[in-house]
Amino acid sequence: MNTIQLIFKSLFAAFFLLMSFTTIGNAETTMSEEGQYIFNTLGFYLGGVLVAFMAAGFCMLESGLVTTKSVSTIAAKNIGKFAICSLVFFLVGYNLAYGIPEGGYIGSFTVWGDGSKLGTGYSDSSDWFFQTMFVCATASIVSGAVAERIKIWPFFVFAALMAGLIYPISMGWQWGGGWLATSGFSDFAGSTLVHACGGAAALAGVIVLGPREGRFGTKGEKKSMVPFAASSIPLVVLGTFLLWFGWFGFNGFSQLAMGTFDDVNAITTIAVNTHLAGAAGTVVGAALTRLIGGKTDIVMMLNGALAGLVAITAEPLTPDPLLAMLIGGIGAVIMYFGTKFLESQKIDDVVGAIPVHMFAGIFGTLVVPISNPDTNFGSQLLGVISVCVFSFVLSYIVFKALKETIGLRISKEAEKLGTDKAEVGVVAYSIRD
Amino acid sequence: MNTIQLIFKSLFAAFFLLMSFTTIGNAETTMSEEGQYIFNTLGFYLGGVLVAFMAAGFCMLESGLVTTKSVSTIAAKNIGKFAICSLVFFLVGYNLAYGIPEGGYIGSFTVWGDGSKLGTGYSDSSDWFFQTMFVCATASIVSGAVAERIKIWPFFVFAALMAGLIYPISMGWQWGGGWLATSGFSDFAGSTLVHACGGAAALAGVIVLGPREGRFGTKGEKKSMVPFAASSIPLVVLGTFLLWFGWFGFNGFSQLAMGTFDDVNAITTIAVNTHLAGAAGTVVGAALTRLIGGKTDIVMMLNGALAGLVAITAEPLTPDPLLAMLIGGIGAVIMYFGTKFLESQKIDDVVGAIPVHMFAGIFGTLVVPISNPDTNFGSQLLGVISVCVFSFVLSYIVFKALKETIGLRISKEAEKLGTDKAEVGVVAYSIRD
Amino acid sequence: MNTIQLIFKSLFAAFFLLMSFTTIGNAETTMSEEGQYIFNTLGFYLGGVLVAFMAAGFCMLESGLVTTKSVSTIAAKNIGKFAICSLVFFLVGYNLAYGIPEGGYIGSFTVWGDGSKLGTGYSDSSDWFFQTMFVCATASIVSGAVAERIKIWPFFVFAALMAGLIYPISMGWQWGGGWLATSGFSDFAGSTLVHACGGAAALAGVIVLGPREGRFGTKGEKKSMVPFAASSIPLVVLGTFLLWFGWFGFNGFSQLAMGTFDDVNAITTIAVNTHLAGAAGTVVGAALTRLIGGKTDIVMMLNGALAGLVAITAEPLTPDPLLAMLIGGIGAVIMYFGTKFLESQKIDDVVGAIPVHMFAGIFGTLVVPISNPDTNFGSQLLGVISVCVFSFVLSYIVFKALKETIGLRISKEAEKLGTDKAEVGVVAYSIRD
Repeated sequence: MNTIQLIFKSLFAAFFLLMSFTTIGNAETTMSEEGQYIFNTLGFYLGGVLVAFMAAGFCMLESGLVTTKSVSTIAAKNIGKFAICSLVFFLVGYNLAYGIPEGGYIGSFTVWGDGSKLGTGYSDSSDWFFQTMFVCATASIVSGAVAERIKIWPFFVFAALMAGLIYPISMGWQWGGGWLATSGFSDFAGSTLVHACGGAAALAGVIVLGPREGRFGTKGEKKSMVPFAASSIPLVVLGTFLLWFGWFGFNGFSQLAMGTFDDVNAITTIAVNTHLAGAAGTVVGAALTRLIGGKTDIVMMLNGALAGLVAITAEPLTPDPLLAMLIGGIGAVIMYFGTKFLESQKIDDVVGAIPVHMFAGIFGTLVVPISNPDTNFGSQLLGVISVCVFSFVLSYIVFKALKETIGLRISKEAEKLGTDKAEVGVVAYSIRD
Repeated sequence: MNTIQLIFKSLFAAFFLLMSFTTIGNAETTMSEEGQYIFNTLGFYLGGVLVAFMAAGFCMLESGLVTTKSVSTIAAKNIGKFAICSLVFFLVGYNLAYGIPEGGYIGSFTVWGDGSKLGTGYSDSSDWFFQTMFVCATASIVSGAVAERIKIWPFFVFAALMAGLIYPISMGWQWGGGWLATSGFSDFAGSTLVHACGGAAALAGVIVLGPREGRFGTKGEKKSMVPFAASSIPLVVLGTFLLWFGWFGFNGFSQLAMGTFDDVNAITTIAVNTHLAGAAGTVVGAALTRLIGGKTDIVMMLNGALAGLVAITAEPLTPDPLLAMLIGGIGAVIMYFGTKFLESQKIDDVVGAIPVHMFAGIFGTLVVPISNPDTNFGSQLLGVISVCVFSFVLSYIVFKALKETIGLRISKEAEKLGTDKAEVGVVAYSIRD
Repeated sequence: MNTIQLIFKSLFAAFFLLMSFTTIGNAETTMSEEGQYIFNTLGFYLGGVLVAFMAAGFCMLESGLVTTKSVSTIAAKNIGKFAICSLVFFLVGYNLAYGIPEGGYIGSFTVWGDGSKLGTGYSDSSDWFFQTMFVCATASIVSGAVAERIKIWPFFVFAALMAGLIYPISMGWQWGGGWLATSGFSDFAGSTLVHACGGAAALAGVIVLGPREGRFGTKGEKKSMVPFAASSIPLVVLGTFLLWFGWFGFNGFSQLAMGTFDDVNAITTIAVNTHLAGAAGTVVGAALTRLIGGKTDIVMMLNGALAGLVAITAEPLTPDPLLAMLIGGIGAVIMYFGTKFLESQKIDDVVGAIPVHMFAGIFGTLVVPISNPDTNFGSQLLGVISVCVFSFVLSYIVFKALKETIGLRISKEAEKLGTDKAEVGVVAYSIRD
């Protein structure tokens, strides 16, 4: 009896322990899930803040590169577009992009709502915050190219359609789980979905608008370049630095998670590859311009940096660092000759947005299969062509429609006077020594 | 004997397991607490860094908006104030604000010390780091309004009193657990405690100082505006962007915790609402100035953005995003007409700090009850009036006292020459084409 | 038999529980380890991003302080150096610094590879990312001092040798676990290893180069200062703010871990001490220049801030906040008189890099023993002398070798014309009112 009692007691103790253990087990799992959730959400938040800095970066870069009579205007366009794209992407674009049924072509216009649960892995609002900064970046690519001759409000209308319709649809094909995703296309952080898409829209814009007055005059290109001197090189450099740092978030947090060993490793590997690609692009841009042009053209260095960053964006995770440098360096080469090609075609891209974002973006997307065995060149080509053609054609239609209705280009008088005086009424600089 | 021995051994094993389990249990609980502690502390750190960027934002915005002869001075005031407010808030203000007994009116001057324990949830130093950046923001609001005519060192004295006395007392009424907190007032991140408080102090300053020479001349406002052209619009835009991004920390980490599912969700919901309110303010500012003035005044767009951000600051968590947009948009309307009103009253607020921070801040605080059922209009009104009157009266007394003693305003000769030459001895720009 | 059976069953249950417990134990340990790993890696990532902002800060500060004819050039040097140092530190320097055997003098040239494991506590790539931003900062210190007369590409060659050889070797003596570390030297975040090292290299550079044409003319210093007016004070202030904020990462994440209660407390304590030292430096800089020179020289305020930040960098953790203020304030005093001393010696340091980084850095390193009982003055002095002499001598040799081979200084014609026209071919500003 005594023995049996003891045995029962010991069994009871064992059972109690087993129960307790089960409880710990659960507690452990729950804690873990919550921890991951916090890390993932924090990742989107940090990524969103860093990509937001790219909006300031684009604004500084464009403000510095335009002539002094269009600086207030480009600044107004940049912050206005930042606001408008965010509002429209909230109201329409986000659902359109992410409501696409698997393998489908277009999403639904359901109203966005926060349904964050532990099981979803991160908060809905953090995801929207991160994604909306990508839309703003896409529209920023366009504003620089079409600067100094497009009217403010028609540009805002275009930006709204870009954020509400064009970008969400083609982006949704891939990141929304649409037909491109199922076709085997791969674009980690958006060399094509963001950069080439924005670049193709910019190309449509500059074709519809035509070049700035006197940009390709009969007096020869060299001479007519003088009145188009950049207003402030330090602002261009500041803008490039801000874009570069923003890219750490743009590429890094496109891992979309931070709550595990593998995810956080991926984020920092991506940061290193992204940084080295930008560095290689900078050096190649500097060397090319020095070897070919005789001087070390700062603008080509900066656009080299950006081209390197754009090129690595399609696959910043799988390349080893030496390959990342190579991809970034070649991106800069493509940007350099792309710039010369556009100039030869008398296409007036004020800041070099098309060679930087479209040409280097296409290149970066096509070379993904070199390091990522799950991709193939055919799928990559299909993705590039689909997105670029879609973005170009829709943008072309929108720009044409704007031109025929509310008007797209400022008057010749306004262009001579400068958009700052004509449209904004605030002169950018009032500096006396 | 053998059986009993075995039973004892098994009991011993069970006991040993129980002990071990208890240890794990503690380890688990500790881990969890430690994880939360790290997240909370990291949140304050990140928030502090982001709000620090607002100091640079204010500096760029004010440097860009003043005339070219006062740029070095305003820059010196901004970084000097950043330093002085931090030192004084460390030595005096922090304890004064947080040492207030429940329901009390004023805190004690105990020396701040780090007593961080796991149980406190976050490190003392992280909290101080975050809070000190708020003080700097409050004082920044004043510096822009009184620019171009206040002497540097009297301004520094005012900044020290703001950071050491005025702000800590009224802020402590609420966030230090004083009488306002117990009265039911609610101000999540400081539409009133920071922005309206700073705006009211600025109003006192500009009244005591009077307008800049020739600002409201007999030649009519339009004409006399010319010599007051903003020195650099791109810097103003950069400043606005930096403020906007800083607001993600300002509002987001005013949740004061990040270590749980609910807290991190709150932070990102706040980021989204804050962003959308700023976006709506920008668009409304742009539209108003275009519809009323004919041109798309960039300064009104930027102040619209800031007014939207200020308005949502009192309650960035409970509104749904559409309401956040509405609050931000109305904030911009209030800023617009408030600016016109101050001009009509010949009150010379150089950067529009009063309409942006005080008027939009009051509005934002009063509409909290729309989305937050735990608040009521009466308590909100009481809080707004108390803080604004307290800040205005004390600031007025300080400015008057400075005027009567060490002097507040630069001489007419110095104002004509410009404060950069008169007080700093360093001309802001030396740019030759 | 029955009893024995029961006993065995209970023993079996106990054994099973023990196994399970072991499993939980592991799961618990693993989880905990993974959480720490994520926090540590995130810390390096955040620190790296913040220190990256210092590159933009140096660029803005230097662009603003040089004369208007050298702005594009200094900007090109800054972003080029950022790229080149990163590439070279990846290919060579990192391994050289961290491959040093215990107590050794030089590392090995093994190829860097990611071997991140949970047990290593953080990802290799995150560590590289953080450390590479330190190299870039070290090289930035040099570029400002030697501005306006050094050729671009020879400067790039020097930057490559700095990042690939000079900095990694002396830094490895301490942080790579070399002989200095075993000798008892202490330099938390690099007052000596980064700042004095960079400052000593800058001193070698300005000695080899000589002053700018007309900088110390026979016409008297005061008069000859006029043509050397800073091109843009707002950019200098912006740069200082960015450096200041970058320092929160520079010092804070030099704790090298964030995953425990103690580590995260250390990070925020460091942030507070760093901030207060910078604040005290600013105020002391402002007060000194006001008391001695009559005017509140903004450049001295800004260099005061930086000197305060440099001084606290050697030990930002152990001082109490009042001591941190004192160290920062004295750092600014040393910077002030150091600047006057260099001017009296006709040493032309364009931005004041040597007094800020070398003089204040040496001071900060020597006073570590006041708050850190594990250090002693002798070891600190040994470290300071070793690193400064090593950096100075090697830099001197490199600059001399460059001078004798590919040439170091631009021609007198180029200097008169300005490096922007002579070397970059892009004028920095094209601003018309």
